This record gives sequence, C-alpha cells and structure tokens, in this order.
Amino acid sequence: MLEKISQAKVFGGWHQQFTHLSKVVNCSMRFAIYLPEEASSDNPVPVLYWLSGLTCTDENFMQKAAAFKAAAKLGIAIVAPDTSPRGKEVPDDADEAYDFGHGAGFYVDALQLPWKTHYQMYSYIVGELPDLIEAHFPVSKLRSISGHSMGGHGALVIGLRNSERYCSISAFSPISHPIDCPWGTKALSHYLGKDIELWKQYDAVELLKQAMARLPILVDQGEDDPFLASQLKPDLLLSAAERSGSDVKLRMQPGYDHSYFFIQSFIEDHLRFHAGFLHNQERAES
Amino acid sequence: MLEKISQAKVFGGWHQQFTHLSKVVNCSMRFAIYLPEEASSDNPVPVLYWLSGLTCTDENFMQKAAAFKAAAKLGIAIVAPDTSPRGKEVPDDADEAYDFGHGAGFYVDALQLPWKTHYQMYSYIVGELPDLIEAHFPVSKLRSISGHSMGGHGALVIGLRNSERYCSISAFSPISHPIDCPWGTKALSHYLGKDIELWKQYDAVELLKQAMARLPILVDQGEDDPFLASQLKPDLLLSAAERSGSDVKLRMQPGYDHSYFFIQSFIEDHLRFHAGFLHNQERAES
Repeated sequence: MLEKISQAKVFGGWHQQFTHLSKVVNCSMRFAIYLPEEASSDNPVPVLYWLSGLTCTDENFMQKAAAFKAAAKLGIAIVAPDTSPRGKEVPDDADEAYDFGHGAGFYVDALQLPWKTHYQMYSYIVGELPDLIEAHFPVSKLRSISGHSMGGHGALVIGLRNSERYCSISAFSPISHPIDCPWGTKALSHYLGKDIELWKQYDAVELLKQAMARLPILVDQGEDDPFLASQLKPDLLLSAAERSGSDVKLRMQPGYDHSYFFIQSFIEDHLRFHAGFLHNQERAES
Repeated sequence: MLEKISQAKVFGGWHQQFTHLSKVVNCSMRFAIYLPEEASSDNPVPVLYWLSGLTCTDENFMQKAAAFKAAAKLGIAIVAPDTSPRGKEVPDDADEAYDFGHGAGFYVDALQLPWKTHYQMYSYIVGELPDLIEAHFPVSKLRSISGHSMGGHGALVIGLRNSERYCSISAFSPISHPIDCPWGTKALSHYLGKDIELWKQYDAVELLKQAMARLPILVDQGEDDPFLASQLKPDLLLSAAERSGSDVKLRMQPGYDHSYFFIQSFIEDHLRFHAGFLHNQERAES
C-alpha cells in the first residue's frame, strides 16, 4: 500500500512523496515522483528513474536538480527512490560513516549477513519499484535510467544488465569502476564478501568490457570534481566502451564539480537524450 | 573583508558564498552570489537582490529556485543574503520559535533592546550589502529586488521606500500587511515596540495606501498556499495599489502552495520582468 506524505504543484504537474512497505528490502521505503500535467490514464507517460548518490534521499534531486521545466515540456515522469533501506531495524556502518550502510546501498543485492536482510537495492530498483509505479500511476512501461555518483554507477549497471527493461542510460559523475576505488571496495566487500568475481557484475567497466552495450549511454563529468581521479575514473569507462564497441558518449565539462549545481546545468540535455529514445519507442509501439 | 567559503560553476557562471563582518548588524554575515559568465569588469551586470522567508539562509533560493539558467541567459547577477543576524552573541526568540529571532529578521531596523544591537536588517539590505557587492564584484549599480513570504514583504517595503535605488520589485507570496497578521505583529511588537505608527513604515499595504508606487511590481501567489488568508492577504495589497494608482500586477496561481516548487515554476517570469527594466535603464544610461 502506498501512503502519500506530501504533494506540491510544480510547472503544472505534481511532485509527490510516498512511503510503502517493500517486500524486497524488508522495510518501509520512501520515494518521490514528478508527474507532468499531461500524464493521465488516457495518456500514460514514460518514466525516467533517477538514482542518487551517497548520503542522499529521494529529496536531493527533486529539490536541487531543476529538472521539472524540461520534464513537463518533454512529457516525462521522474521517479527518485531512496539510496538505501533505512530505519532502526536496518543495520548501519559501525562508525556511521557516510559511505556505507544507510544512504549508501550501492544498488547491489547483498549476500552477507547482517546486510542481506535489507540491502537488496538492485532488485528493488529493477523490479519492485517499477512494478509499483506502473500499477499506481498514469505511466507507461517505457523506462530510462540515470543517476549521480553512486547512483550513476547504479544506473549504468542496472541499465547494462537489464537492457530489455530500459530505452537509454545516462549518468553524472558515475563511480565507473567500483571494484577498484575506495568507496566501491568498502561497500562491495561488506555487501558481497571477498570474492571479487561476484563484484564484477556490479561494475560498469567490467560489464562494458565483457559485452557491447545494447543501449545508448550519455555521461557528463565535471573536470574539477574532487573525486574524479580517486573514485570515478570515467576514462576507464570510455576505454572499456571502445573495446566492446559500445555507444558511450562521455562529456568532460571544464570547471564543474560534483554538486547539484553541476547536475542542474546539464540535466536538460539528459532529459532530451532520454525523451528522444522513449518517445521513439512509444511511436514504434503505437 | 570578504571570505569566500564555497564556489561552484553553474550554467557557465559561478555560485559563491562569502562571509563578512557587518558593521550594521554587528556580527559575521553570510551571503551568496550568482555571477553569470558574461560578468566582468568590462561588462558589469545588474543585480537582483533576493530576500528569503522565515527560517531560510542564503542557501534556500540558490539551491531550490532553479533560477540560474534564466539569470545566465538574461545576464543578471543574483545576491541572496541571510534572513537575520546569527551567532551565539545574537539574541534569539525565548522559545527558539521559527517566526522570531534567528532566521526571522523581518527586514526591519529594531528599536527595542535586546534586539536593536544586531537586528538592523533593513539598513543592511538597503545600504551595506549593495555597497559591499558593488565594491567587490563585476556588477553595475542597477538593482532590482524580490523575495518570498517574509522576504516578499521585505522586497516590497524596501523597494517602495527606496525607489531611487531599484528598477523594479517583485514578490512571491509576500506578507502584505504585517501590522495585521500573527507573524507580523509578533515580530514588529518585539523589534519596534508598541507604537503601531512605527510599524506602518514596514507594511506594504500601508505604504501603497499612502503614495503611488514609483516602481512596477509583480506578485505571484499560490491559491493553495496554507498561509494565504491568515498571514499573506494579497487582496489587501491589490486594493491599496488601486487606491493609490500603483502599478501592481497580482497573479493568483491555482493549485500552487508556499514552497520553492511554486517559486521555481514562475521564477523565470520574475527574472524576465526585472531584466526588462534593468536592461532598459542600462541602455538609457549608456
């Protein structure tokens, strides 16, 4: 059951927040949705799923990304889930660090105790959440996926592994190669255990090396991002894409950092990128 | 002296935060500025001053209003001050209520102890802040003023009383008649004392009754704003404007509330409104 906890009109459409009891992550989860004015049961709109980064909730993108004007114009809904299970019953990092546990689900299905009881964000994003959205809102089954930082990693991995479920993929400042950076190795070793072979299915660089991407991918990266060299490594993404002949467009943006000020500067490009593929598919199916 | 505490590139320009020691409010103050890419000493740009509402800092508008794309295109800088003096030495509401003291300076010059030592936000906004901005940034002396709720009240009052210093005024959901609403009477009685005649110089409805506004005024108000009837009363603003023949355009916006989702939906209209008058004046002076 969905419980609506807020609603505000924005650019003619509606921003709403809901909570629901998730079977997959085994606790109450909050998400936000933006529905453009034109969305109705007679006119279901496609959906962009947005995955946020470390420490974020459903609110960061919705409040700071300045995405609604373009989404309203392009006729696209946006769904922003939380970045992890939360609550007193959900285990957290022992030191309450920002980069593991609450706010840092890393979009994986955990295999290790005590994490695996709740940290099943991969299956939540791929299956349970879109099923819920498509059952309760005036949206079609056409989806694209995007995200930022840890959420850029999530969008790439989920889109690459489930190409039949999405029309296009994009990312801002993604953690491209989590099996070889501090944020990634901390999270993957705890959630998945020591076997690095298990980590590779959650690594965009490894996935792009193994097989040609079936979906188009747009990536924006700020050149003055303090995490660029140590955590993000988009150059590895590009070389893996070239190796497999994948359609990855990486745009290095001079002067921009890791913040939502960077995201809001280019989010319209991403929305137009996704809208092109979503509406093309819509026309093909009608 | 200005101390820069943050900087981020956005839409080709720069969002920056500074602190400085204010003589007028007698403590350290923080403000934020957005400078469009084109601003330079050879090309100083006009400035829109934005006054925020109760509880806000310099950050709310800058993070949530989605104003930078239009400001960049129109070539306008935006300055967002804090909404009160702050710090351990600055007296606060006895109950730490949100509607008085810290975060609630009401843009007045306090006359009563203990408030008058720091709560001089009117003089800070009218004089010290623009002097500082014009001395340190590539901006012209052409100014407009806008704000939200308590800050909408501030923009109206400051613009009406200093028409020689601004080119245009706008407001979202302003507290139009603070001498007769709960937020206003609480603040004005503490800051100014019991003499209601002294309150009237900080009341947009009273000012508009007394004299024709010398500047054009645009006001947007959400019809589903929960504070509309009890605190905001834009109908009184309109009737006072009609009485004095003032140029006040009030737009009632069906379905919108009091949030930044409402502000971001219409901020571009306000920026275009101000840019028209600012750039007209620029051409007249060149």
